[in-house]
Amino acid sequence: AMDGAPPPTSPTGLSAYVAVSQLLGLTLLATTGAWLGRYRGGVAWHSPLQFNAHPLCMVLGMVFLQGDALLVYRVFRHEAKRSTKALHALLHGLALVIALVGIIAVFESHRTKGIPDMYSLHSWCGMATFVLYLLQWFLGCGFFLFPGASFSLRGWYKPQHIFFGITLFILSITSCLLGITEMLLFKISDSYSHFVPEGILANTLGVLLVAFGLVVGYVLTREEWKRPPLAEELALSMDFKTLTEGESPGG
Amino acid sequence: AMDGAPPPTSPTGLSAYVAVSQLLGLTLLATTGAWLGRYRGGVAWHSPLQFNAHPLCMVLGMVFLQGDALLVYRVFRHEAKRSTKALHALLHGLALVIALVGIIAVFESHRTKGIPDMYSLHSWCGMATFVLYLLQWFLGCGFFLFPGASFSLRGWYKPQHIFFGITLFILSITSCLLGITEMLLFKISDSYSHFVPEGILANTLGVLLVAFGLVVGYVLTREEWKRPPLAEELALSMDFKTLTEGESPGG
Repeated sequence: AMDGAPPPTSPTGLSAYVAVSQLLGLTLLATTGAWLGRYRGGVAWHSPLQFNAHPLCMVLGMVFLQGDALLVYRVFRHEAKRSTKALHALLHGLALVIALVGIIAVFESHRTKGIPDMYSLHSWCGMATFVLYLLQWFLGCGFFLFPGASFSLRGWYKPQHIFFGITLFILSITSCLLGITEMLLFKISDSYSHFVPEGILANTLGVLLVAFGLVVGYVLTREEWKRPPLAEELALSMDFKTLTEGESPGG
Repeated sequence: AMDGAPPPTSPTGLSAYVAVSQLLGLTLLATTGAWLGRYRGGVAWHSPLQFNAHPLCMVLGMVFLQGDALLVYRVFRHEAKRSTKALHALLHGLALVIALVGIIAVFESHRTKGIPDMYSLHSWCGMATFVLYLLQWFLGCGFFLFPGASFSLRGWYKPQHIFFGITLFILSITSCLLGITEMLLFKISDSYSHFVPEGILANTLGVLLVAFGLVVGYVLTREEWKRPPLAEELALSMDFKTLTEGESPGG
């Protein structure tokens, strides 16, 4: 859109779905804040409230920012791939840093209160997701940002990166739902079954997390909304196709 | 493969992944059985053990059978579409019946013990998943099995059916993980944090559920493993393409 030609437009449906995803994302953060602020005493670092930084950081980093990082190739579909890629890596990097703060919060809070670490299914799923997410980020940078990897190596890794990227996003949301269930059964086990407002609010947060994942997942997987290659990329990929078809006999 | 020609072979990787998925599926059932049998007194219907029919039915129906129903288009990739479709609908139907038994088990058990229904995030996610799964099954039968729907209507619905099918499979696994967490915090809340064998076993069941979902998801989404259309289907779909491209102006 820099050459004075009319800027290419996005499919209408796409813009609407992306707008809904962002509204859901902000609602997620507001709902998490409302739960922690109204029923759990708020969030603070060097205090008995340190634990509360954990859910807030995980929802912000591992769900909202991770989801938005996945959406950049759809939202900035007509920008140069190079800058979109950098933004993708940057948002995931930010998500990782915020998630790390959230993980430190729960370990420090456990240490202060003498609670054992890593015994629950939530902790197993969550920690596996975080470690694999970090690994995926390093692999992504190594294959796609640094100039070393060949076209054919990138072509082999790309579908794996996409599959595991979406998988890690789903696992992040699943880990959040497990965390919500754990927290409710730790904190309000006596009143949860009486449909108290805190239980309803936290359940609603779970439903919103699923809805966010659903909308992001729909945008990502819809065939017509995939990023169309720019003219110069098309030329490159045609070269690449010739190269790889020359290299390996067809399956 | 009925005309005496050598039967077409499946990609080697595909067979290996399908074999792993089935091993994981059976391990899932064995692990669920071991948990219920060894630590929870076993499974019975008109008895205080009725609740235990719930996890067993849900893992069997909503995970193992649902997963296998999704795999039939990959496993029977060279069979006629008509029979593969019937098998797909049949396995989902069986999954629905078994899941219904599992849902009855938990409602009857709650009624006997005076426990309220539908207050937890697990129950919200699980019930929403079951109801939408039933709806998806009816829609699938309506669009694809009964002869009424036009080619263009089927062509419009198919990607939606696939997206929501995979989504419901993921939500089923998520609901199982939430159920495991709930059950552990109800039954062994005092000892769970001491890494008792029951906790480790149930956590492992959660990890196996994720692994099953991962392998099935990988098989389903891998581009080269998608079911190749048979010669006669190709001819039909070319007619269909001409028809739909004539019907609607390109996006």
